[in-house]
Amino acid sequence: MRIVLVTGSDAKAREASEILGTEIERADLELPEIQAATVEDVAREKAREAFRRLERACVVEDSGLGFAAWNGLPGPYVKWFERAAGLEALCRSLDGFPDRRSTASCVLAFRSETQQLTAVGRIEGSIARAPRGSGGFGWDAIFVPEGGDRTFAEMSAAEKNAISHRRKAWEELRRMLRLWQEGR
Amino acid sequence: MRIVLVTGSDAKAREASEILGTEIERADLELPEIQAATVEDVAREKAREAFRRLERACVVEDSGLGFAAWNGLPGPYVKWFERAAGLEALCRSLDGFPDRRSTASCVLAFRSETQQLTAVGRIEGSIARAPRGSGGFGWDAIFVPEGGDRTFAEMSAAEKNAISHRRKAWEELRRMLRLWQEGR
Repeated sequence: MRIVLVTGSDAKAREASEILGTEIERADLELPEIQAATVEDVAREKAREAFRRLERACVVEDSGLGFAAWNGLPGPYVKWFERAAGLEALCRSLDGFPDRRSTASCVLAFRSETQQLTAVGRIEGSIARAPRGSGGFGWDAIFVPEGGDRTFAEMSAAEKNAISHRRKAWEELRRMLRLWQEGR
Repeated sequence: MRIVLVTGSDAKAREASEILGTEIERADLELPEIQAATVEDVAREKAREAFRRLERACVVEDSGLGFAAWNGLPGPYVKWFERAAGLEALCRSLDGFPDRRSTASCVLAFRSETQQLTAVGRIEGSIARAPRGSGGFGWDAIFVPEGGDRTFAEMSAAEKNAISHRRKAWEELRRMLRLWQEGR
């Protein structure tokens, strides 16, 4: 089955290709994002709309960064913080809390005419005191995966892709698609 | 012209009645909220959808609380922070910044078959070190309007309604509706 990844982000499409080890077809639709408490709900709603417009099997991605001290927020809203307030401010917004733990999430919502699948990849870590590194994209410079002291942006693409929330989500989606195909 | 206010919030409907000095008709629709950078965009999109469903002139309200240190965020997303992280955490998230200035906004988006109006009311203030007071609703306990040292939640309903962002927005909408009616 050929799947199209719906994303406006070059970086996300590139990472998906690297992780899957194959070129991936891509569509860039202007999809409205709803406000919802979780990244899953945002992605599922986007996939429904993407399928309605494309009329073929597609995957949409949404990612988020949750702070333990904020009970999972900014979560799906992190990109607005990134753009408006900047990464430095995101780091400082945790300075009043002893707890800097964070969870990075990637949700891949698959939709075809007969099937709807939601694969989630998560990785635990913490928020740096200040942004560090020049690799990656988005909030990579402030997220330090558990078990090390470097941010995603201080790693090579291969290092990041070996452990990332996005890698885990794609692996999970592949597993789900395989099970579905076998079951048909 | 009879207008219906579309809101799921008893508190917002009550304040609107108090401010306008008249009973206000109310509809409670489950409207999806889009993600957008500003409260205005969120409200306009909701009004479009409300009019489509109700097929009569209607007003939807959206309010937000922006922090200067975060360049206007959490803004339209403040309610998610309120619910997930709580008011205490919102206060503490500014502890790493010298600047606690904040702007409270209320947007009223009016939509009829032939007209679309957006009235905005804003009030400047700051974010308290910790929540205070038991009046009001939402984030009233952390917002201290400029020129005083009490939060909205430490004021009587009449005191709050005399100066609030919601009062300003309703006055602006009334003015706009009057001009439009006169011009027809």
